[in-house]
Amino acid sequence: MKILFDPSPRTTKEIFSDQHRDAFFAGHDVVEVDPMARAGVYERHLPQTEVLISQQPMGRDRLDLAPHLRAIFNVETNFLPNIDYETCFARGIHVLTPASVFAVPVAEIGLGMALSLARNIHGAHSDFVAGQEAYGLEGNGQAELLSHSRIGFVGFGDLGRALHALLRPFAATIRVYDPWLPDDYLRRQGVLPATLDAVLGDSRVVFVVASVTSENTHLFDRKTLAKMPDGAMLVLLSRAALADFDALAHEAGSGRLRIATDVFPQEPVSPDDPIRRVPGMLFSAHRAGALTSALEQIGALVLEDLSQIARGLPPVSCRRAERETVGLLRSKPIDVT
Amino acid sequence: MKILFDPSPRTTKEIFSDQHRDAFFAGHDVVEVDPMARAGVYERHLPQTEVLISQQPMGRDRLDLAPHLRAIFNVETNFLPNIDYETCFARGIHVLTPASVFAVPVAEIGLGMALSLARNIHGAHSDFVAGQEAYGLEGNGQAELLSHSRIGFVGFGDLGRALHALLRPFAATIRVYDPWLPDDYLRRQGVLPATLDAVLGDSRVVFVVASVTSENTHLFDRKTLAKMPDGAMLVLLSRAALADFDALAHEAGSGRLRIATDVFPQEPVSPDDPIRRVPGMLFSAHRAGALTSALEQIGALVLEDLSQIARGLPPVSCRRAERETVGLLRSKPIDVT
Amino acid sequence: MKILFDPSPRTTKEIFSDQHRDAFFAGHDVVEVDPMARAGVYERHLPQTEVLISQQPMGRDRLDLAPHLRAIFNVETNFLPNIDYETCFARGIHVLTPASVFAVPVAEIGLGMALSLARNIHGAHSDFVAGQEAYGLEGNGQAELLSHSRIGFVGFGDLGRALHALLRPFAATIRVYDPWLPDDYLRRQGVLPATLDAVLGDSRVVFVVASVTSENTHLFDRKTLAKMPDGAMLVLLSRAALADFDALAHEAGSGRLRIATDVFPQEPVSPDDPIRRVPGMLFSAHRAGALTSALEQIGALVLEDLSQIARGLPPVSCRRAERETVGLLRSKPIDVT
Amino acid sequence: MKILFDPSPRTTKEIFSDQHRDAFFAGHDVVEVDPMARAGVYERHLPQTEVLISQQPMGRDRLDLAPHLRAIFNVETNFLPNIDYETCFARGIHVLTPASVFAVPVAEIGLGMALSLARNIHGAHSDFVAGQEAYGLEGNGQAELLSHSRIGFVGFGDLGRALHALLRPFAATIRVYDPWLPDDYLRRQGVLPATLDAVLGDSRVVFVVASVTSENTHLFDRKTLAKMPDGAMLVLLSRAALADFDALAHEAGSGRLRIATDVFPQEPVSPDDPIRRVPGMLFSAHRAGALTSALEQIGALVLEDLSQIARGLPPVSCRRAERETVGLLRSKPIDVT
Repeated sequence: MKILFDPSPRTTKEIFSDQHRDAFFAGHDVVEVDPMARAGVYERHLPQTEVLISQQPMGRDRLDLAPHLRAIFNVETNFLPNIDYETCFARGIHVLTPASVFAVPVAEIGLGMALSLARNIHGAHSDFVAGQEAYGLEGNGQAELLSHSRIGFVGFGDLGRALHALLRPFAATIRVYDPWLPDDYLRRQGVLPATLDAVLGDSRVVFVVASVTSENTHLFDRKTLAKMPDGAMLVLLSRAALADFDALAHEAGSGRLRIATDVFPQEPVSPDDPIRRVPGMLFSAHRAGALTSALEQIGALVLEDLSQIARGLPPVSCRRAERETVGLLRSKPIDVT
Repeated sequence: MKILFDPSPRTTKEIFSDQHRDAFFAGHDVVEVDPMARAGVYERHLPQTEVLISQQPMGRDRLDLAPHLRAIFNVETNFLPNIDYETCFARGIHVLTPASVFAVPVAEIGLGMALSLARNIHGAHSDFVAGQEAYGLEGNGQAELLSHSRIGFVGFGDLGRALHALLRPFAATIRVYDPWLPDDYLRRQGVLPATLDAVLGDSRVVFVVASVTSENTHLFDRKTLAKMPDGAMLVLLSRAALADFDALAHEAGSGRLRIATDVFPQEPVSPDDPIRRVPGMLFSAHRAGALTSALEQIGALVLEDLSQIARGLPPVSCRRAERETVGLLRSKPIDVT
Repeated sequence: MKILFDPSPRTTKEIFSDQHRDAFFAGHDVVEVDPMARAGVYERHLPQTEVLISQQPMGRDRLDLAPHLRAIFNVETNFLPNIDYETCFARGIHVLTPASVFAVPVAEIGLGMALSLARNIHGAHSDFVAGQEAYGLEGNGQAELLSHSRIGFVGFGDLGRALHALLRPFAATIRVYDPWLPDDYLRRQGVLPATLDAVLGDSRVVFVVASVTSENTHLFDRKTLAKMPDGAMLVLLSRAALADFDALAHEAGSGRLRIATDVFPQEPVSPDDPIRRVPGMLFSAHRAGALTSALEQIGALVLEDLSQIARGLPPVSCRRAERETVGLLRSKPIDVT
Repeated sequence: MKILFDPSPRTTKEIFSDQHRDAFFAGHDVVEVDPMARAGVYERHLPQTEVLISQQPMGRDRLDLAPHLRAIFNVETNFLPNIDYETCFARGIHVLTPASVFAVPVAEIGLGMALSLARNIHGAHSDFVAGQEAYGLEGNGQAELLSHSRIGFVGFGDLGRALHALLRPFAATIRVYDPWLPDDYLRRQGVLPATLDAVLGDSRVVFVVASVTSENTHLFDRKTLAKMPDGAMLVLLSRAALADFDALAHEAGSGRLRIATDVFPQEPVSPDDPIRRVPGMLFSAHRAGALTSALEQIGALVLEDLSQIARGLPPVSCRRAERETVGLLRSKPIDVT
């Protein structure tokens, strides 16, 4: 199978284990694109290309050059408006992303952050280092258990499902707000469908695990956060655009809510951004998914679906762009610095 | 049922929710002991007492005063050498403790501490506050997943089982060293029996969840810790006496191991104890179990077994002192300050 | 939304609960087709139709009449070669089937049949009625447990996954042969990918749960069955075409294998078909899926995806025909008698 | 350790795998008792015996002969009134039975019988053999699913817990009536405590898994069964004495209830017992537990607890006789024929 391979902004080394990289190159007819010298390369190779691994623009003009194209893999893992998706769908070209590789790593740190908020693991540690710890019951001011508690999810995609799996032994009541999924579908997954207001008002911990779309930008603003009960916890795992960070800082700073976030509107955060000094917040510098082991899974899932495609079978390991929703997604590209 | 009630060092308010306290006093003939005026009280009331809730000395002399005694509840939750256990066993007096109330709270924070070590949640937070955060892959130096990892337990009592339940979705290989349990018994619980060396040598995270006994004091010394692989994690949840803290500080301070502890040889820890400045350690000031909700479960379990005893049934909710092992336990009493 | 509704060979009453039927008709602009008077109806209504619920032929000619068509639901639940699928895919018309409604009912009876084979529940019952029972150990000749046993699956679609879920507490080693799925995909589902030979040779029970395709007709013939060890069990749940029934009768009749089947090459089976007298076989007359409650789920899933489509979202509850595989499926239409 | 070994009515071969038998004799100082020549043997050996494996009478007189006795194992697996239990308890002699070996085998066939009743697997099979089968929906008259149904348990010991584990994936509401256990204890096991009336009135399937006691003989009589709703199912797994079999025959024969039983008041059942011809009953001739693999587990559990006792540890694998309840048990000895 003839593959045009242009993984930038990721690197070959990043997305493949040594073993998988060898299998990839040995098992396919790969043209590797030099990101410093792309001029003419696509035009020259697209006419023979069967599979494209690239985040470069693929408008109608370029698609017309590629009559044998069967799939485009987006290894950056964000669908962007760089492709003429309609033409791909009409021609039966799968547009695929192995984004699910991040589900388990992010779910694990998400659970860890929720436990840190619920038990003040990070704060009690800092207090101890500073010689200001309180022991036993006294040191457990707002501490509460996740077991048998009430937990809310905003969004229920790959990440929501991975987190749900980790939470099962806690036997919590789990309410999910996901306007893209039918209520009974959610019930079949073992969670309770709910309105956003019910999720916010009835949960001790709310996990924000939705993709950012044109419809949910700044979903978590002052008005929404006000619906959460005193002492409730919010764990923001997916995208910063879902929240108004001034509102987060306000609610955490006042001590009313406990908030953890892995994402920020501008990254890196400015050294003098006042959010750094907001008490009641647990910070993580966009570290939730970016593990070596997760990135290497990108190559693994690509190899799995390449094998499916080569055998004339539908891809099953990567997520497909969907005609109805791909235009609504609003993730930002990875910064290339 | 005639009950002599002397919960010190715990208080009535601490171990009973309002509702359970009312049920306790309304449903039984309770003599409450004033800890400031114990003289003569036991001698006066033991002859009629059927159930004793107390951690006071109960030697043969006092037991001989109590011909109707059917059970002694230890609500401090540590069996101490304050009772003539042999006489109790011979007479069919159950000696009971609701110690399992701490299993879930400690398991939850134990998982939280392990996730904090594995992903450096607490450290990355401090770095962010200090304006020294690293983003993405760069900020994930030693980060690793618990999913599909290798995990070790030292001890497999109530706490071990509660932690095992929380770890199920991680699908890790779990090796257990517990010299008090048969190998096939452990296999039936779904874990792999192992020697201490195998647990130490083959695990990424080791949870220390054993009761302290006359046999396992300072089990974790320099020699034992040396068997753990580079970068492995240790989470000390049960009792400080199990570890040599100089050895812990050495291995964590050198960066070879990542270590979390909820317990310390002397509590409170001295303000100038050098351990406070050891990098690579995550500290918690004996906060793992002492939640209001857990303490209130003490009264709940006592009520459950009082009802069993009143109906002539065996207690099932509290743990019983065992003839073979009670003499080996070496927990310290709670400090009354 | 304008719907052309022609559920034949199923009936409206069969696929909808009263409540769902009312919701269906009240919530949509439905044209119901009289199966006795179809002439001209499609031609008249397709130009306005947005959703078609029908198993009637939909070649290019008819699709060309339906410029607004967004989805075709097949409520017979078998994709047949009655549609110009390529044109549908090119135009973004989803072709959908709520076939998953049968997964749980078939999985439950499949587990029941396996337990009946393993413990001879049906045979021991007949023996008892005939006054020929043997008690205890004597009556348990070939009896064996599923717990911790080795189980094989041929196929791992909706049905395989539902059966896998029911088998989880048995903690069996589960090997799966499914040539349409990547090995690591199966591993992520918690099963072991295997060759057909390994599934047959290493399993005590083999569940046949694959769709019938042009590639697997008579997969279970004399040669294949010979690879199963003595006393092993086969449970045929999906389609009769997967097995050579003479070979099944031979292996079961000789007492070498224990075989259960819910399907037969010709249904109804002829009154004098010799298979009826084959010992070692457990028979079920195509009853595995056809429960009232399952059929009513057909309407429920259709309603869920109608709501998705009406809101401009991708269908998620029904299975989609796939460009790569729809041409390989070889199910027979339901007999209309 | 000095062991007096008299497993009758079971045999050495029955309760030990070859490997375990060898380990048993090699690892202990065993005196094997010839059941044909018991005279004087006990008197001669009890003075040195540390562990007794026997169901022979052990009154005070014999116990007084055995000052070193630490445990009595009952490998018949029924506690009978053949022992002076009070003296054993006073002296710290454990009385033990490995009865839990039957929990999983009985739970598996119990689930199989419930699925057979719910889907008429056995009846539809007989119909097919007789050439009288009905296909599809027509053949599924009373068929119903266990998934998401309401299930009741009478009793919640080893067997109840094993069955509960197998039922987990069915996500049923499980109500338990067990007068020997506190309500909150049951809730912690993940089931709902209920009165007998609630279990009978609200369940589609009731599993009878209680030990027979002096209090529950003929618990299932005409009056009790009348509380079950039409078409409900009863699976009798533990002991025949729990039910009035005339009442069972009446309710099953009239077609009002579906009933499965593994036990009978007299075994073997008389050849002309009219129960054999009662429709609506599923019969099993006391086969639920008696598998070779289960019997061999008896020896395995005995070995585990022998090792505990030899090391001065409490037995954990066998169940202990309890002072409060042992006198209430009413199992019959195994017939020695």
